[in-house]
Amino acid sequence: MNFENLFNNDRRTLARTISKVEKGDQESVDILKGIYSKVGSAYRVGITGPPGAGKSTITNQLTKILLEQNKKVGIIAVDPTSPYTGGALLGDRVRMNDIGNNPHVFIRSMATRGSLGGLSKKANDVADVMDVSGYDFILLETVGVGQSELDIAQAADTTIVVLVPESGDAVQAMKAGLMEIANFFVMNKSDRPGSARAISALKTILTLRYHDENTYMPKIVSAVASENKGIDEILKTILEHKEHLIDKKIFLLERFKRTKVRIKEIVEDKIRKELWNSESDNSLILSLNKVITENISPYKLADDIFEQFKLKIL
Amino acid sequence: MNFENLFNNDRRTLARTISKVEKGDQESVDILKGIYSKVGSAYRVGITGPPGAGKSTITNQLTKILLEQNKKVGIIAVDPTSPYTGGALLGDRVRMNDIGNNPHVFIRSMATRGSLGGLSKKANDVADVMDVSGYDFILLETVGVGQSELDIAQAADTTIVVLVPESGDAVQAMKAGLMEIANFFVMNKSDRPGSARAISALKTILTLRYHDENTYMPKIVSAVASENKGIDEILKTILEHKEHLIDKKIFLLERFKRTKVRIKEIVEDKIRKELWNSESDNSLILSLNKVITENISPYKLADDIFEQFKLKIL
Repeated sequence: MNFENLFNNDRRTLARTISKVEKGDQESVDILKGIYSKVGSAYRVGITGPPGAGKSTITNQLTKILLEQNKKVGIIAVDPTSPYTGGALLGDRVRMNDIGNNPHVFIRSMATRGSLGGLSKKANDVADVMDVSGYDFILLETVGVGQSELDIAQAADTTIVVLVPESGDAVQAMKAGLMEIANFFVMNKSDRPGSARAISALKTILTLRYHDENTYMPKIVSAVASENKGIDEILKTILEHKEHLIDKKIFLLERFKRTKVRIKEIVEDKIRKELWNSESDNSLILSLNKVITENISPYKLADDIFEQFKLKIL
Repeated sequence: MNFENLFNNDRRTLARTISKVEKGDQESVDILKGIYSKVGSAYRVGITGPPGAGKSTITNQLTKILLEQNKKVGIIAVDPTSPYTGGALLGDRVRMNDIGNNPHVFIRSMATRGSLGGLSKKANDVADVMDVSGYDFILLETVGVGQSELDIAQAADTTIVVLVPESGDAVQAMKAGLMEIANFFVMNKSDRPGSARAISALKTILTLRYHDENTYMPKIVSAVASENKGIDEILKTILEHKEHLIDKKIFLLERFKRTKVRIKEIVEDKIRKELWNSESDNSLILSLNKVITENISPYKLADDIFEQFKLKIL
């Protein structure tokens, strides 16, 4: 396969390649294997937090500053869509009129589709394609629903958690599992009441978090993204965290750890594809009747399916 | 195995059996196979929604009403815990002083642990054990983080989504994927400002949702759970939804569909256990060095692991 156009930042080629890679079929695997030796120069930033915290606004403003510094920015916007309808609910989100047409920005929406996971695999795959196509920064933005946040952290060098004073107290953030994935926090809409209290609660919790000499102690950056306040500070803190990773010689180690998780996901995804197809689906439906009529345990049926799977992959 | 004590609602046996089942090992599978023919009489209710919406309070109040009606209530409280620390953050949550000691109530906290999914499998397993132990209702309560909500819907006959006026507008709820899983909504803390507006926005969105003649059109029940207001109405609506499922002859069909997903999860879980152990983990770490030093694609390594896996399960 020839990747020259992709490496030369041809937008149509990039868009087409991402679409191919998203399919997750054999061609997709071939592409990802083919480009891999060029992967690695883009810095990947995850932007996450609860719905309504202003993640899109921050992504947009951050992009504008990066553009001023002559950086190229790839944006992956993760839209969780229902496993029940399958459609991309926000697929055509009306966003980013001011940056969407800039030739140094490439925006891609990604639907999470289904509850079987695989988002971080997909995000890593698409980020790899953007990476070799010459983007300096890749911003991965989630709409903020639990699992997708953890998935994004798995694909990012620096993960930012955006909160607002109304996000509730630090215990709520802790409950949502946001504490451990954050490299730093942004308290957005910090001109609203309760901001100081929220920041101080967050600080208290952070001191309880496990840390050793290699740990980057998360800062809390105040911002009002809609008024473009605090965005410089956010970028500064991203770069500071990057410096920390390099200084402590853990930059590659962290990527290494994430690659390990990624390989596991690739293997599991591969097996799922072998397992579930229209044929096995039909046979599952047939045997399912036994669960109802003969009260056979789902665990017994699972054994049968596993035996069939073994025969199949021989 | 003898399940008499379990079937006779012996609490210590129940607690021990749940612990065994949570391990997910061969003994766990044997137990779940053994009890399966008795499973099915408990009605399962999922209670979900964003953090801070008051799900615990509603669970508690609902339990009290059910107790007044001489029902036995099992509660499964899902605490998401970080895949990074592994510990059960809220494992010993201080809750439910007023119902926790009632002999007709059994409360179990469940940590989600790790990002590999499997929560709905675990929730189904534990619910099965409670089911055969004589509980009339099983309430599955999440702390409300994305994936766990979808998982809970996968284990429940009726799923309630709890919102508060401040949850933001209906678009935020839509983004969070809550619209499709709700059989009905509770607008909690409905004495707060913005409640009427939030309900009306929710109604507008609901009319857009796909529905046919078998669809139960979700109601929106107003409540102030902390003052015990609206709880009767919540129970009434749960039973109304149950009636609807039975009337339309889709009660078993819905369980059937969920069983299909459950079997898939069991098979995948089984395969994951075969795949990842300390041996394969070591070999993965060794080959990972190649990703860094020789720039070998994670997809290539995944192929190798898959080939090793095939040889292993023969």
